[in-house]
Amino acid sequence: MDYYSKTITKLIAELGHLPGVGQKSAQRLAFHILHMPEEQVRTLSEAILTARTSARYCRECFTLTDEDICPICSSDKRDHKTIMVVEDTRDLVAYEKTGQYHGVYHVLQGAISPLQGIGPADIRLKELMIRLQGDVDEVIIATNSTVEGEATATFISKTLKDTGIRVTRIASGVPVGGDLEYIDEVTLLKALENRKELN
Amino acid sequence: MDYYSKTITKLIAELGHLPGVGQKSAQRLAFHILHMPEEQVRTLSEAILTARTSARYCRECFTLTDEDICPICSSDKRDHKTIMVVEDTRDLVAYEKTGQYHGVYHVLQGAISPLQGIGPADIRLKELMIRLQGDVDEVIIATNSTVEGEATATFISKTLKDTGIRVTRIASGVPVGGDLEYIDEVTLLKALENRKELN
Repeated sequence: MDYYSKTITKLIAELGHLPGVGQKSAQRLAFHILHMPEEQVRTLSEAILTARTSARYCRECFTLTDEDICPICSSDKRDHKTIMVVEDTRDLVAYEKTGQYHGVYHVLQGAISPLQGIGPADIRLKELMIRLQGDVDEVIIATNSTVEGEATATFISKTLKDTGIRVTRIASGVPVGGDLEYIDEVTLLKALENRKELN
Repeated sequence: MDYYSKTITKLIAELGHLPGVGQKSAQRLAFHILHMPEEQVRTLSEAILTARTSARYCRECFTLTDEDICPICSSDKRDHKTIMVVEDTRDLVAYEKTGQYHGVYHVLQGAISPLQGIGPADIRLKELMIRLQGDVDEVIIATNSTVEGEATATFISKTLKDTGIRVTRIASGVPVGGDLEYIDEVTLLKALENRKELN
């Protein structure tokens, strides 16, 4: 039975489809929206639809953008011979926030996951291979440090083995500021394995 | 600096204005929306705007609805001589879900809170008084068991003192299923004070 009026019930239901938004949160969000100034609600509603309808993948690197070619790929200030491979646009943004990476990216829009039935053909790997036929010095694999991310990294490095392109993987180890006590054993072993000479 | 394209940045900013949605959650929601089927996004966007533009207060009880008079107030199956006073439409829904209350409601749309500068004139109290000039047997005060809710309850009961209308307050005590060990002292004392004869 619906306890709210039709339009409010509909709003709660739609908000409840969003990830991490349960029935109670959806109600709370809905009532917040109902008490917001109408102009602000209109802005929110339009931002949602506009972002979705204008969303497309960059023709070069397949990041989510609203342009044909994203600002990074069209910039002549970036080193187009260094390509960092990431799983997701959010991972690209995480590296952009460091402000220290000046190459370009390739966004796979996923990772290989046999368990979920996602194979190499289901992510933007073919597109990466096409890009690598151009003039590329280094491919930095920055997929997540998960089973899927590692599987994807292994697949890419194997595929590129005989191309002469330098293939690197971002380091695994103890996060900066991390307290050893709270770090899992696999990470601790990785950190030991990847230890560096200090002098 | 904006790391996302303009429309995505705008979407993240708008979602970030919602209560309980921080920067990270806004990003997660935004990317979920960007990957949703366009038709579903259109439905969400429209649900938000429609709910807000059609939202109004019931002319009788001031609950949030999309009709001039809400279904409860316009029902002839309800006892219109018993009015339960609540702070918020969500409180009304909480009692409706019990399925055992057959009277009508009055939604104050707030509670008296001197600290926040909300006085009796800022909530729908005047409208309650006007309703009470009609044929009413009982006013059940079901404001929250908070400082504001109690202040509002006291104010209403004082105001109605000499009207001859029966004024009651929902009981305070240990919630059903509650373990005494985890219940705060004020509630325990309230429960003791409000104890009932068993035979």
